[in-house]
Amino acid sequence: MTAPKAYIFDVFGTLVDWRTGISDAVREAGLAVEPHAFADHWRGLYQQVMEPVRSGARPYTALDILHRENLEATLDHFAITGLDEATKTHLNAGWERLPAWQDAPTGLEQLHEHGILGTCSNGSIALMSRLVRYAGLPFDCILGAEIARSYKPNPQVYHASCAALRLAPGEVMMVAAHNSDLVAARECGLQTAFIPRTTEHGEGQTIDLEPSQDWDRVVATIGELAG
Amino acid sequence: MTAPKAYIFDVFGTLVDWRTGISDAVREAGLAVEPHAFADHWRGLYQQVMEPVRSGARPYTALDILHRENLEATLDHFAITGLDEATKTHLNAGWERLPAWQDAPTGLEQLHEHGILGTCSNGSIALMSRLVRYAGLPFDCILGAEIARSYKPNPQVYHASCAALRLAPGEVMMVAAHNSDLVAARECGLQTAFIPRTTEHGEGQTIDLEPSQDWDRVVATIGELAG
Repeated sequence: MTAPKAYIFDVFGTLVDWRTGISDAVREAGLAVEPHAFADHWRGLYQQVMEPVRSGARPYTALDILHRENLEATLDHFAITGLDEATKTHLNAGWERLPAWQDAPTGLEQLHEHGILGTCSNGSIALMSRLVRYAGLPFDCILGAEIARSYKPNPQVYHASCAALRLAPGEVMMVAAHNSDLVAARECGLQTAFIPRTTEHGEGQTIDLEPSQDWDRVVATIGELAG
Repeated sequence: MTAPKAYIFDVFGTLVDWRTGISDAVREAGLAVEPHAFADHWRGLYQQVMEPVRSGARPYTALDILHRENLEATLDHFAITGLDEATKTHLNAGWERLPAWQDAPTGLEQLHEHGILGTCSNGSIALMSRLVRYAGLPFDCILGAEIARSYKPNPQVYHASCAALRLAPGEVMMVAAHNSDLVAARECGLQTAFIPRTTEHGEGQTIDLEPSQDWDRVVATIGELAG
């Protein structure tokens, strides 16, 4: 294995704590609901709403719009009515105001000396630009879904991200807290790094506690990748 | 005029000193030529090689490739022969190793508190990612030519950059050292800021010494935009 020339990152769950961030947004909006339950339900609709885009049944639609559709569904689920448009818009923009996991900003700073840093998320350029600015994550570029016009784990997202960097997949390392993301990246020829985030889904988390394959790197903090 | 929500930047000439950087690369490569003359000729072919892409006569071709074509033409012009492939590749990558103007890194750092920062350059994502990393320019995202599949000053480059940020043109400020870039941006409805770089072309520079229109801001340093 040669040293990667670029590191590309999953963001939601891997670098930022979406569950805490969204719960805080729900609480601030004054919704009469247990904030974590709302956040879990909202995020729980995430994979299925991207599926028609992955299959080609629906044209590429930015995650901002999909998040908003899922917000409406989640409000319905909890029978919450009467929210005005401004409150909904602000709540949906909660995905742009998520706190970084503690090790992420300084870890990326350290890793930056070793290679190009890019996001490879399903978030749009608009969403990612605001989120990396808010969370203080020093990236060189936003790659991922929007430049590929598809969603992970479709292979074109990984391939388009490497191509945009003018690098072969083997020169790029995908970093994620989700084994499924790394399975797809490895199938595309990328190097892989797993960083467990054992409280992403709260204290009772049952998935992605451990690596499911012999990933090239398994680290406890982003900074370890620089070592 | 409302405060911009995002600032997008021209890069070559506005944030980095391409003439010094390319001259240094030419000197390091040991070419038997006056380095500034070589840099000026190479950069002099810049606009014309993008023209077929702008007109649609040639499909979008990354600036890395256009720079390489212009390198060959410049070597021919100076009757320099016998360079091996590795030297040419390294020389062409000189566009990824350009020094920032002194005020740019700290100025962007200050401005970052006021809005999203993106590049709006004709450079590709691959080129820009390496250059902002090398020059220490803290951007949130790479916009510009590649996401628009065209070249400035074509309007779709400015429009695509604003759209990628989910912002109206009037919410975005284009910052450039070149009046022509701002003319095009203003026609698209963007706010405009001019920063003269009076030695971009060397001591005898005759163009872009002063604003050609009443741009929304005229500043001497990037940091002034934060004030």
